[in-house]
Amino acid sequence: MELALLYSGGKDSSLAALVLDRFYDVELVTATFGVTDDWEHAARAADALGFPFDTHALDRAVADEAVERMRADGYPRNGIQRVHEHALESVAERDVDAVADGSRRDDRVPSVSRAFAQSLEDRHDVDYLSPLAGFGRSAVDRLVAESLEVETGPSEEITRADYEGELRAILADDHGPEAVGEVFPDHEQTYVRGPTE
Amino acid sequence: MELALLYSGGKDSSLAALVLDRFYDVELVTATFGVTDDWEHAARAADALGFPFDTHALDRAVADEAVERMRADGYPRNGIQRVHEHALESVAERDVDAVADGSRRDDRVPSVSRAFAQSLEDRHDVDYLSPLAGFGRSAVDRLVAESLEVETGPSEEITRADYEGELRAILADDHGPEAVGEVFPDHEQTYVRGPTE
Repeated sequence: MELALLYSGGKDSSLAALVLDRFYDVELVTATFGVTDDWEHAARAADALGFPFDTHALDRAVADEAVERMRADGYPRNGIQRVHEHALESVAERDVDAVADGSRRDDRVPSVSRAFAQSLEDRHDVDYLSPLAGFGRSAVDRLVAESLEVETGPSEEITRADYEGELRAILADDHGPEAVGEVFPDHEQTYVRGPTE
Repeated sequence: MELALLYSGGKDSSLAALVLDRFYDVELVTATFGVTDDWEHAARAADALGFPFDTHALDRAVADEAVERMRADGYPRNGIQRVHEHALESVAERDVDAVADGSRRDDRVPSVSRAFAQSLEDRHDVDYLSPLAGFGRSAVDRLVAESLEVETGPSEEITRADYEGELRAILADDHGPEAVGEVFPDHEQTYVRGPTE
């Protein structure tokens, strides 16, 4: 069975790929608005892990709408959530049996409700899987330490290919670099270099 | 890393074992009040799947309390939930790095809240995993069809080793066979014969 996994090159979506690998032909798919080349980092991580990779074009209008929402809110949560739901809807149109993401039990955003999951499955005739939904932070960290070679650092220094990088770029372009700091708090990101030796 | 998975011999906990197998040394553990020998069915399924197996003794007072609760409610949900939480607490005392169960995204009972999971992890210094929490019914059915040889039938004909069998037996013993029908609606159960050929 064919599965498209929304992939950022970070530890969560990389671990999700390892969980699903036993059951599906997993393709790692980085959704992009075409604003930055950050997807190239995800492509390298996918190659290091030995999975096939593709990009998937998202609707730029959704990014602009999300950026305006984040500026109005003063925090990124609702904008990121909107983009993630759009990405799932869009990737579910691919010719696959299932779509998946790397969301964890403790993630506050993006979060996919049971109702959204069921509706996505019904409307697109695919299964939706969040293989880490039942994994807490410490279990994920332990499994990542055993399975993956990871780089950690502040968001602005670790380039990976989640929507955040592109939304930051649009914010900076449209409203100046200080608009980014007003919306995004500092936090640590990870980037996967490959499997452990 | 050592993991104890609460195991009934049914399709959900069997699939959960396959998901976790890549990352953990999985032991299948059937929790029992010592009321019936239903755990022997789980032991046979575990053997057919090639996993180590053990039983784990639960506190009979919890079963009696659950049975009284189910009779008062007229439905089994709260009683089963209480027994499941007791089983997780009890199995978390074993010398393992992690405990797990086979609960699915669409299960209404037993359900393990994020708060209960976090508290269990903190108090027992273990990770708690519900590897199917991000898998819906149709994905589980498809993966089971590919990976497991399964028998399906009404609850009273398929003997497996969830708490339900023992709680039914206690109900029938204490309050007569008609008390069972008053609490448990008819529904289909599954029993795993082994991997697909």
